[in-house]
Amino acid sequence: MKILEDRIRQDGTILPGNVLKVDNFLNHQVDPQLMDQLGTEFARQFADAGITKVLTVESSGIAPAVMTALHLGVPMIFARKHKSLTLTDHLYTAKVYSYTKQVNNDISIDRRFLDPNDKVLIIDDFLANGQAVQGLFDIARDAQIEVAGVGVVIEKRFQKGHQLVVDAGVPLVALASIAAFENGTVTFAQD
Amino acid sequence: MKILEDRIRQDGTILPGNVLKVDNFLNHQVDPQLMDQLGTEFARQFADAGITKVLTVESSGIAPAVMTALHLGVPMIFARKHKSLTLTDHLYTAKVYSYTKQVNNDISIDRRFLDPNDKVLIIDDFLANGQAVQGLFDIARDAQIEVAGVGVVIEKRFQKGHQLVVDAGVPLVALASIAAFENGTVTFAQD
Repeated sequence: MKILEDRIRQDGTILPGNVLKVDNFLNHQVDPQLMDQLGTEFARQFADAGITKVLTVESSGIAPAVMTALHLGVPMIFARKHKSLTLTDHLYTAKVYSYTKQVNNDISIDRRFLDPNDKVLIIDDFLANGQAVQGLFDIARDAQIEVAGVGVVIEKRFQKGHQLVVDAGVPLVALASIAAFENGTVTFAQD
Repeated sequence: MKILEDRIRQDGTILPGNVLKVDNFLNHQVDPQLMDQLGTEFARQFADAGITKVLTVESSGIAPAVMTALHLGVPMIFARKHKSLTLTDHLYTAKVYSYTKQVNNDISIDRRFLDPNDKVLIIDDFLANGQAVQGLFDIARDAQIEVAGVGVVIEKRFQKGHQLVVDAGVPLVALASIAAFENGTVTFAQD
């Protein structure tokens, strides 16, 4: 998506360790017009997938997810992150390891909000190692629902999250796909 | 706002301790069409206030805040919650006590995203004890920016957050204002 690639080139910062910082328009300060455009594009690409709900994980996924859900005309659910809980009978839970923060968290979704007829679209801001997506896959398996797609604003194609989604046989849409970082600049994948 | 009051009556649950649970449309499962309507209404009510940015706190404030910012045509910033940090020179931070979770958190906003010319609108899902709003007031004071308004989806008028905002002289808009809980039902304030 050209406007997104242009925005990343213009406003993104590459930190040591190939960390792409886009906190001025995506995950701290948020550009709502851009979120609306991203949501419109995800909705367009998954228009015929029969999506009944959009799932994401708090917090950075919420803004693009709510816009996508708005344009698909379906509810959005954000999984909550927390330290391991004791009373979880009413929740679907999964473990998620954060490479950035180097901690294990549980993510959870209330059982009331998923039923076996659901076909869900997972939306997130970043796909790198794919831990958050794997956690939502785990929840979907437990809830016996179908994951009909994964949409991420930015993927780092060279990290293992991309292959994880492909190997699961789930359609993946990345609105910007980073092939490499070279000399402090971003190279986008061509397809 | 009648559609919101109707929705609370229809889908809200009152738990022991006067906790209103609205996690089926506001703060876990989210109704994006309703968020769009709430954002439209906040933007209408603050249209002449010269707002340059919308502020909220992760995570439940993000969905209504991004819709409000969309309709005002300004950026949205969500403050991040975390345990106390050591390296905070680049952040504005404030302490926030959560009555629900009975823990102290820091909230923070990167200094790059606030400048003294900003006039901000604070948006949140709930106003009860007002701790999150007070934290954002503290950050606004440190950043020397003007808080031109506070907009909350639901306020519990009988708790101290309402008076805290009034005492600060900041215009307050609550789209649903709960006067009392009686016999398991909600009574809305009349004005």
